[in-house]
Amino acid sequence: MRAVVFHQQHDIRVEDVPEPQPVTGAQVLLEPLWCGICGTDLHEYTAGPIVTATRPHPLTGVTIPQTLGHEFSASVLEVGPEVRSVAAGDRVAIMPLIYCGRCDMCRRGANHLCRVMACTGLSAPTGGLAERALVEEYQVARLTDDVTDIQGAVVEPAAVALYGVERSRMRAGDRVLVMGCGPIGALAALAASALGAGDIFIAEPNPRRADFATTLGVGEVLTAVGDDLVGVIQDRTGGAGVDVAIECAGKEAALNAAIEAVRPQGKIVQTGLHTRPASTFPAQWSAKDITIEATWCYAVTDWPRVIRLIARGRYPVERIVTARLPLDEVIVGGFDRLIDPAGEQVKVLGSARPGGNGQ
Amino acid sequence: MRAVVFHQQHDIRVEDVPEPQPVTGAQVLLEPLWCGICGTDLHEYTAGPIVTATRPHPLTGVTIPQTLGHEFSASVLEVGPEVRSVAAGDRVAIMPLIYCGRCDMCRRGANHLCRVMACTGLSAPTGGLAERALVEEYQVARLTDDVTDIQGAVVEPAAVALYGVERSRMRAGDRVLVMGCGPIGALAALAASALGAGDIFIAEPNPRRADFATTLGVGEVLTAVGDDLVGVIQDRTGGAGVDVAIECAGKEAALNAAIEAVRPQGKIVQTGLHTRPASTFPAQWSAKDITIEATWCYAVTDWPRVIRLIARGRYPVERIVTARLPLDEVIVGGFDRLIDPAGEQVKVLGSARPGGNGQ
Repeated sequence: MRAVVFHQQHDIRVEDVPEPQPVTGAQVLLEPLWCGICGTDLHEYTAGPIVTATRPHPLTGVTIPQTLGHEFSASVLEVGPEVRSVAAGDRVAIMPLIYCGRCDMCRRGANHLCRVMACTGLSAPTGGLAERALVEEYQVARLTDDVTDIQGAVVEPAAVALYGVERSRMRAGDRVLVMGCGPIGALAALAASALGAGDIFIAEPNPRRADFATTLGVGEVLTAVGDDLVGVIQDRTGGAGVDVAIECAGKEAALNAAIEAVRPQGKIVQTGLHTRPASTFPAQWSAKDITIEATWCYAVTDWPRVIRLIARGRYPVERIVTARLPLDEVIVGGFDRLIDPAGEQVKVLGSARPGGNGQ
Repeated sequence: MRAVVFHQQHDIRVEDVPEPQPVTGAQVLLEPLWCGICGTDLHEYTAGPIVTATRPHPLTGVTIPQTLGHEFSASVLEVGPEVRSVAAGDRVAIMPLIYCGRCDMCRRGANHLCRVMACTGLSAPTGGLAERALVEEYQVARLTDDVTDIQGAVVEPAAVALYGVERSRMRAGDRVLVMGCGPIGALAALAASALGAGDIFIAEPNPRRADFATTLGVGEVLTAVGDDLVGVIQDRTGGAGVDVAIECAGKEAALNAAIEAVRPQGKIVQTGLHTRPASTFPAQWSAKDITIEATWCYAVTDWPRVIRLIARGRYPVERIVTARLPLDEVIVGGFDRLIDPAGEQVKVLGSARPGGNGQ
């Protein structure tokens, strides 16, 4: 079958790999419908291997080359005899995390922090950027008819963003600042809207990304940075500051502006992944009595809830999708476009189905 | 009357100043019993004026010279006709914050974050390092007979430390790491003990301070720093990490070690006041899904609760007091000793009463 395979830094290929074969009765064989390219995939491409396994992964035994793709919707082709929650023909969204279930974090119910965690499409035998994938039953959640294939492919990053916004304990009517409008920032703005935010401000200095942010239709887009941005926020909030700032840029300047822009006792959520240390002033955190919630992924049990939120029209996650491509085109049209600093593409989906899928 | 007065950097004098005269019917005239010297006072001494007012304070109208002292117990000499909660002869602990009651933060009930806040002993007409002080009724809380004058003088920093530990949402039996054993670190360790911590680790590299930490009798004292400290914590916790780390050193290395030493989804509390920016790695915060609670002061309504905790013997705050001096000796024996990096003194109390007070 055709698959998008990470070999090493700057070396991702669309090539033929063997079809996966179920090995236990609790597995689900899938035909991916749409699969998103994630920032993590891009990091592997430009600076990897980072998350992909160079030694046999303790949970899955795999090493690179690795079939990519961990944000996907799929059609169920076949289920093992122990599988009860889905059947052949069902459409599903995939929760890609693979956890041991035995370590201290798993036993606390924080499976997303499993001490030996693996991930479909990053450190597992299969991935979503392929004609077939094989996952555990606990990794699939059924998509109801009112959720599209495309929306299903965005459930994973949508869960990341929602988890971040919820960690802020944002309240209806709150003023929310989102730093950065990549896929997670965009979804965080949509999630804040779903949770009843009052004013949403999206800070995005890149002009193309700012245009994209405007198309989300949920908040005021601000292109100012640093002190200027803080000044605008002070102006918009009558000097009070925002209640919540969701840092999705993963940059020192964004973090510090968020800290400046939030009101005393406000909440900072660090959802964007920084790639280097940041210099910040802890005395300023203290003087404002603020809380910083740094977030990783999502609760693995969140899928049905996120799907419901999408199904009811409250979380229009499809708005972040800027391109859909056949599998053979995702390297040039997806990976290479997504790492272009111009920022024209935000979320690119690929599909192995001939001609791609519908909505 | 005699008072300890801040004039300017490196210029604090014990001198005669006019006795305070009540100006409203809601005020309480006090004879201070014991008054502690705080890190904030030391910052004024070595690097001020910082918190003391160089222009008339918007709430109190005062400027330096400033009578110092905001951690004190006192005997009530006289109360205004509107005062109901205390009477002449009562002993009280003073909540030094003076707030407007009208700004957005006051109206939220977060009076300790009042936008125009002043503080007795820092930006108000009187302070506790003097023969008399004058405060508002809302600034005094009665000391019951089972709380000593000395304990009463430590209620203020005890409230700071308790507020920090409580913000961690620490649970009984949790493993708690306290970074730094100055007065706030020592009180944080005692507060964690009062709240039922399992293991308490106190990280303090200074040998004299480490000896002092041992005298608290509530936890294991660790003199290792950086990676070595993290290694000891990993060893003591079977590789899991601590549930809570309370950063009371106000130093970059302490903050980073705390982040390393805490378990995934653990809590960092930033109670120590940093004096400069810190370089830290937000991706590490994210990967651990941790919460950082940065804390400022305390709820102004906490006094009766803190006093109760002390009165019941659960919070032996007097253990942090390392010297008690007559007022005329507090500059040489207090301020100058406390800024000595050898760290022999932790909490020095002064009293204007001839010969000082009893317990």
